[in-house]
Amino acid sequence: MNPTHHRISLPVIKRLPRYYRYVQSLADDGVTTVSSSELAAALGTTASQVRQDFSCLGAFGQQGVGYSVALLCAKLNTLLFSGPKLNTVVIGAGRLGRTISQFLSREAPGFALIAAFDNDPAQIGTTLGGVQVRDMATLPAFCAEAKPQICVLCVPEESTAGLVPALIEYGFKGFWNFSHYDLTANHPGITVENVHLGDSLSSLGYRVRNLEEN
Amino acid sequence: MNPTHHRISLPVIKRLPRYYRYVQSLADDGVTTVSSSELAAALGTTASQVRQDFSCLGAFGQQGVGYSVALLCAKLNTLLFSGPKLNTVVIGAGRLGRTISQFLSREAPGFALIAAFDNDPAQIGTTLGGVQVRDMATLPAFCAEAKPQICVLCVPEESTAGLVPALIEYGFKGFWNFSHYDLTANHPGITVENVHLGDSLSSLGYRVRNLEEN
Repeated sequence: MNPTHHRISLPVIKRLPRYYRYVQSLADDGVTTVSSSELAAALGTTASQVRQDFSCLGAFGQQGVGYSVALLCAKLNTLLFSGPKLNTVVIGAGRLGRTISQFLSREAPGFALIAAFDNDPAQIGTTLGGVQVRDMATLPAFCAEAKPQICVLCVPEESTAGLVPALIEYGFKGFWNFSHYDLTANHPGITVENVHLGDSLSSLGYRVRNLEEN
Repeated sequence: MNPTHHRISLPVIKRLPRYYRYVQSLADDGVTTVSSSELAAALGTTASQVRQDFSCLGAFGQQGVGYSVALLCAKLNTLLFSGPKLNTVVIGAGRLGRTISQFLSREAPGFALIAAFDNDPAQIGTTLGGVQVRDMATLPAFCAEAKPQICVLCVPEESTAGLVPALIEYGFKGFWNFSHYDLTANHPGITVENVHLGDSLSSLGYRVRNLEEN
C-alpha cells in the first residue's frame, strides 16, 4: 500500500503527527515553503533530524528554498490517513470510555467507531459517541462478523490483563491502551499505543517538586 | 528536598512511574527481591539501563541477589509522591476537563484539585471532580490568593495559545497539557507534560495500516 513503509522506523512514525500539525498550521497561515531549521526550531529537534526523517518519507527539500509546505501536507496526510477507515471498538463505557468515544467520533478522521462494550447492565443499551453500548458477552460474535481492527481499552488494569489474550484471538490488530496494563511486555509483537495518564502526571509532579528554587 | 535530584535526567524521571508500578505489583505478589534482568524483561529495556537508572536514584542491587523490592518501593514512592500535595487547577470544564478532574480527584495521590475554570456560563457554578467550576475572569484573583502550582489545560489549541503567557505570569509551575498547543516550543524552560491523544491515535493508525500482511 505504501512503498516507503519498510524504511520508516517507530520513532519517525511517532513524529509524523506532530510534523503534520505544524505544516498544516503553516499552510493555514499561507506559508508556502519551510526550511529544515525552521521545522526543527518549531518542534524542538535538529535540522539534520528533520532532513533525515523527511528523506525516509521520500520528501526532499530544495537547497536554499526548503520544503514545499503543500507537498509536505499532502505526503503526511496520505501517510497518516489514506486508505479505508479503521473499524474501532471501545471496551469500557465508563467516564473515560465516554470521553474517548466522543474524541473518536468527532476528531479521528481515519477511524470509524462502530461499537462499545461493557459488562455493567447500567451501561448496556446506552449511547456513547453515537454508538450503542453492547454486552461484553456479545463481543466474540460481533468481532466474527464485523471484524473490527482497533480496540480501545478503557477498562482497569486488572480487567485488561484477563481480556487481552481473547481480544488478540478475536482479530484486533491494534490497541489504544488507556489501562496501565503492559500489553507489550506480555504480548510482544502486537501493535499498541499507550496513554498512561497516571505516569504522565507522576512525572510532572516529580519535576515540579524538584524545580530549582530561584 | 531531594538530594539526588540534580543527577536524575528527564528520560529517567519519565521511567520512574513505570518502575514504581512494576515493583509495587511484585510487592503485592509477595516477591521480596528482583534482578535487573527481570526488571528489564518486564519493562522492555536492558539490564544495564535498569542498573544505571537505579544507581542515579541511589538504589544499589546486591550481586547474585538483586534489589530489595521493599526498598525500591519505598524509594520510588518517596521520589514520586513525598512532600505536600501540589495544588492543581483545571482550565476547561468540557467533557475532557470533567474526565481529567475525576482522575485527579480519585487517582492522583500527590495532587489536590482545588478549582476548575471555564468561560462558558452554562458550566460556571457546576461541580466537577468535587470542586466548583468558576468564571475564567476570576482566575487572576484566585491564583494571587491560592497560589496553585499545577495547571491542567483541557481547552482547544487556539484558546491555549492565548492563555499561556498569562498563566505563566499567575505563577503556575507545571502544565499538564491536553491541548495540541506546543507550550515548550513557545515557552522554553517551563515544565510541561503533554498528552496528545490525536498524535497517539494517528501513529497507531499508521502502524496498523502498514502492518506486514501475513
